[in-house]
Amino acid sequence: MPATPPPLRAHYQRFYPIPTRWLDNDIYGHVNNVNYYSFFDTAIARLLMTEGDLVPWQSPVIGYCVESGCRFRKALRFPDEITAGLRIGHLGRTSVRYEIGLFRGDDQDAAADGHFVHVFVERASERPAPIPEAIRAALTSLQAAAG
Amino acid sequence: MPATPPPLRAHYQRFYPIPTRWLDNDIYGHVNNVNYYSFFDTAIARLLMTEGDLVPWQSPVIGYCVESGCRFRKALRFPDEITAGLRIGHLGRTSVRYEIGLFRGDDQDAAADGHFVHVFVERASERPAPIPEAIRAALTSLQAAAG
Amino acid sequence: MPATPPPLRAHYQRFYPIPTRWLDNDIYGHVNNVNYYSFFDTAIARLLMTEGDLVPWQSPVIGYCVESGCRFRKALRFPDEITAGLRIGHLGRTSVRYEIGLFRGDDQDAAADGHFVHVFVERASERPAPIPEAIRAALTSLQAAAG
Amino acid sequence: MPATPPPLRAHYQRFYPIPTRWLDNDIYGHVNNVNYYSFFDTAIARLLMTEGDLVPWQSPVIGYCVESGCRFRKALRFPDEITAGLRIGHLGRTSVRYEIGLFRGDDQDAAADGHFVHVFVERASERPAPIPEAIRAALTSLQAAAG
Repeated sequence: MPATPPPLRAHYQRFYPIPTRWLDNDIYGHVNNVNYYSFFDTAIARLLMTEGDLVPWQSPVIGYCVESGCRFRKALRFPDEITAGLRIGHLGRTSVRYEIGLFRGDDQDAAADGHFVHVFVERASERPAPIPEAIRAALTSLQAAAG
Repeated sequence: MPATPPPLRAHYQRFYPIPTRWLDNDIYGHVNNVNYYSFFDTAIARLLMTEGDLVPWQSPVIGYCVESGCRFRKALRFPDEITAGLRIGHLGRTSVRYEIGLFRGDDQDAAADGHFVHVFVERASERPAPIPEAIRAALTSLQAAAG
Repeated sequence: MPATPPPLRAHYQRFYPIPTRWLDNDIYGHVNNVNYYSFFDTAIARLLMTEGDLVPWQSPVIGYCVESGCRFRKALRFPDEITAGLRIGHLGRTSVRYEIGLFRGDDQDAAADGHFVHVFVERASERPAPIPEAIRAALTSLQAAAG
Repeated sequence: MPATPPPLRAHYQRFYPIPTRWLDNDIYGHVNNVNYYSFFDTAIARLLMTEGDLVPWQSPVIGYCVESGCRFRKALRFPDEITAGLRIGHLGRTSVRYEIGLFRGDDQDAAADGHFVHVFVERASERPAPIPEAIRAALTSLQAAAG
């Protein structure tokens, strides 16, 4: 299993509950690895929409995922209640690296941890664009919270 | 749209919160019709596992879906919070018909309503089997609650 | 299991191959019931896009699903190769009822059969709208093929 | 976007067709990043099942994903036909690193490329176990094909 120790809840700044679904479980009776990325995606979209004013069906600048990755440490299983912890790893002019930990029930150590890189683009041209003000403010507030 | 009026919360006996996920939305910006069935599946599995002692990875008798259906009345959209309401439509010796309503936020009228029929089978032979005692008790308690 | 006999390949007019995916299987080792609806959706979208000129991200009139249903007759399992057969059940002014059969490998009888009703709407207002010409022509050609 | 150049078809040893599905597209009209991992999973499972005698619902030793990652280079979009190319990055005693490229239509350069690490475990104890003979033979044959 991964050589680095798992991150802890204390290493993240925003938390989103993500109840599992029956269909998350695969043939081995665990949440399938693919679905972890859906949890990442959901946590990030919640941040951008609730704190960054992103309106996915009309905002002129949107985020495209250009890279993601995950280390799987402990199995998750429906009907587990999961919490996604979110922090900002790197904040650039047109891109941001999110880091996410997934926590099972009340566990302090992450069952999985990963990253996700967004490049912001103009919706029409799909050309990189500066991160919109409101989104930058939301991302910056998470960085600040990290001290 | 469907000719029958939508069912109300008061028509259901058990309620399960089902937060939407980013990936639930399809290209039209609404929760895709397919995912409604995942919400049905999740509500039913929660009932069977938390009140009926079903352990999906080992119970000798399990439920197979033989029929399902849904009427879609109002659009749902991430990040909506959904509640699934569940009631028992018909309880037989080896099968049960569940009826499910999906409610958006605090709405009293269902955004969608559907049904789902389980035939219980022996896991090994896949032959129909009587509904296990604990599951029958859980299903009967819902019927009783319906008065 | 369902009381009506399963439909046969000969009962459908268009056929689309739908290879299964690992993630289609659920904890019981079969394609989960929810995913059958994704196969329906995919077959219908292929028809509308390849024969009806639908461009989902820009066409002014699009189809919303208002009702769907499925009867499950035989289990499907990754890595099965599935074929979706499609026919038109009813063609109205603003709505259409599709009927779909799913066939495993070379089977002549359907492993599952279902229906799916689209109401066409103006994208902007979400008000019902006449079925666009090119889509109507595609749907009519399927009806004609059915003799 | 990623700094390294995209891998080419010629860099992979086995190829699996993966037609897209309607539901793969997300609100931005592209295959959602999460689904790329389902394509990885499907290609790997096909290899293990068709060349390595893996029977997921009964084999005593199975593979658990402990790490995965993906770089996204070009958008994919239903109804694209995708081909997954597979090669072996590292083959250990109890683990293997697969590398996967996803190709759109007839493109020679990958739309996305990623990796996926399996640790093989005894199903019952979930303890690491040597890679089963037939699976090792399949993996070795891919390495050999790579010259």
